[in-house]
Amino acid sequence: MIIPQKYLVFLGDVETDLNAKTGFGLVYWRPESCAGQLRLPPCKVTLGIPDMTPAQAIAAGAQTLVIGVAPVGGVIQPGWIGPIVAAVEAGLNVASGMHTRLGSVPEIADAARRTGRSLFDVRHSDRKFPVGTGRKRSGKRLLTVGTDCAIGKKYTALSIARALQERGREATFRATGQTGILISGAGVAIDAVIADFIAGAAEWLSPDNDAGHWDVIEGQGSLFHPGYAGVSMGLLHGSQPDAIVVCTEAGRVEIDSYPGFNIPDLRRCIDLHLEIGSRTNPNIRCAGISVNTAKLATAQREKYLSDLETKFAVPCFDPVATGAGRLAESL
Amino acid sequence: MIIPQKYLVFLGDVETDLNAKTGFGLVYWRPESCAGQLRLPPCKVTLGIPDMTPAQAIAAGAQTLVIGVAPVGGVIQPGWIGPIVAAVEAGLNVASGMHTRLGSVPEIADAARRTGRSLFDVRHSDRKFPVGTGRKRSGKRLLTVGTDCAIGKKYTALSIARALQERGREATFRATGQTGILISGAGVAIDAVIADFIAGAAEWLSPDNDAGHWDVIEGQGSLFHPGYAGVSMGLLHGSQPDAIVVCTEAGRVEIDSYPGFNIPDLRRCIDLHLEIGSRTNPNIRCAGISVNTAKLATAQREKYLSDLETKFAVPCFDPVATGAGRLAESL
Repeated sequence: MIIPQKYLVFLGDVETDLNAKTGFGLVYWRPESCAGQLRLPPCKVTLGIPDMTPAQAIAAGAQTLVIGVAPVGGVIQPGWIGPIVAAVEAGLNVASGMHTRLGSVPEIADAARRTGRSLFDVRHSDRKFPVGTGRKRSGKRLLTVGTDCAIGKKYTALSIARALQERGREATFRATGQTGILISGAGVAIDAVIADFIAGAAEWLSPDNDAGHWDVIEGQGSLFHPGYAGVSMGLLHGSQPDAIVVCTEAGRVEIDSYPGFNIPDLRRCIDLHLEIGSRTNPNIRCAGISVNTAKLATAQREKYLSDLETKFAVPCFDPVATGAGRLAESL
Repeated sequence: MIIPQKYLVFLGDVETDLNAKTGFGLVYWRPESCAGQLRLPPCKVTLGIPDMTPAQAIAAGAQTLVIGVAPVGGVIQPGWIGPIVAAVEAGLNVASGMHTRLGSVPEIADAARRTGRSLFDVRHSDRKFPVGTGRKRSGKRLLTVGTDCAIGKKYTALSIARALQERGREATFRATGQTGILISGAGVAIDAVIADFIAGAAEWLSPDNDAGHWDVIEGQGSLFHPGYAGVSMGLLHGSQPDAIVVCTEAGRVEIDSYPGFNIPDLRRCIDLHLEIGSRTNPNIRCAGISVNTAKLATAQREKYLSDLETKFAVPCFDPVATGAGRLAESL
């Protein structure tokens, strides 16, 4: 799935910044890919980029209208259909991370057929993948893994890819989830793949590359998650990472929404990833620990990270508060 | 997926016993469910049960025509379509483990629509499952796991379920693959589920039950398999086994069709399963080791199994040569 950029970011009539977090993520990580925003009255949320009509956006280089808002339930709202159809008729493709498929809305499907525009439903995966082969690929790979879901794996991977690029290294962020795919314009929604082909899809996602090139792969779920560990397992085998970076959150004690399931001990978490990952890459190592320290005061944060670094002897960082620079330098 | 029994077993024009192994498996494991066989001339292979027309089979209690033959490629042969349509028109449902969906053959789809009969494509999974919850369920569960694919996990699970039943214990075989589903008449093709829902499908497959009841769950793949470990992982978490039985083959040194990937050390294999399985069932234990010893002479076999038993201190058996009786007694 490769989504033509630049984007016109659609915010609909969203009422809070939180519900527009996909849009904010796009502008934060790919400002150069965002031509403008399209808001429906009375929308007051702004991404801080110019308001544009589809025609203006096309003149500014836009090729795709991206749904940058995530309402509860992930459903395309009735009031959005007219503006989306108008964007298609003006010449834009449409990309969405909603549960509702764009093509399941008859007006949008018709408009796409009439105009030859493409509809990208990044939450779904219609592509067929082969079974994983375990064949070693050239180039280097880093996979972010985690003690839980929604703990910073995407953000950490994006930070590391950017930090590598800023240091003149060849690096590509590889997206495995819907927001990551919209940000990078390509990727695989790995949790939407048929179970037999998880590792195969991961292999496809990070193909052979130059010896010094780093694929920085967005992790999904956790080996310790009672619901999603199968996805994490196949992604770990198929990614064949040379390096993992373990993501966690200071102060989180239980798996989100799974009372009674503790956040695993970091040492055990690292050891299990290295044991499993060594099956397809015997040289796998833990390159760092990424901690969301938002709940700690500054002084606490410094002590927390430095204690962790003493214990594990790898760079320990908060991708927001301290950045991934030291990690990138250590690679 | 619950397939109405008894079965009329369709052999088509199969030329070798090996290609009819699904049919032989049905008759071996569920003789009481097989009303008869339907062969097309010049088929010489026989399951040792009566030849019947669809009408005769219905009179003998049959409700479903089961494709008991697996041609290379898993494709429904043109010459089968007429006889399958005739069986549907006579009043039978049809079940198939072929890659080709029954409903994708227009004549078969039409016949089913006209007559209201059901078509079961056990290799595919159209059902939607929830995400795994990790909630502890009542009753007891045993999962067969393995050092590789195609190493005896289904056969071992069927043997254990039968051995428990013969000893008056409540036990149910739970199928996770196409042949197992045809044998038991129910189950989930777990490798065909969307990746996010592997553990959820496994939870659905073995619901709450009586405290003394054993679900004996057919394992899939291997945690050490470079292609399929994601499936094995989700199945292990979702099954919440109280007991695992590890299946391996004496003399196999590499993962089948994956040169360079060794068969894992048994101790390491057991330890990894127990570590991962303890996440959703802290009381998980290894209850036995099932070995395909077909490549060993009788004297070698006895020594091999007794050495293994000394080393691991659990019943070690060959489900074909020695049966699962001692294991069932130890549960």
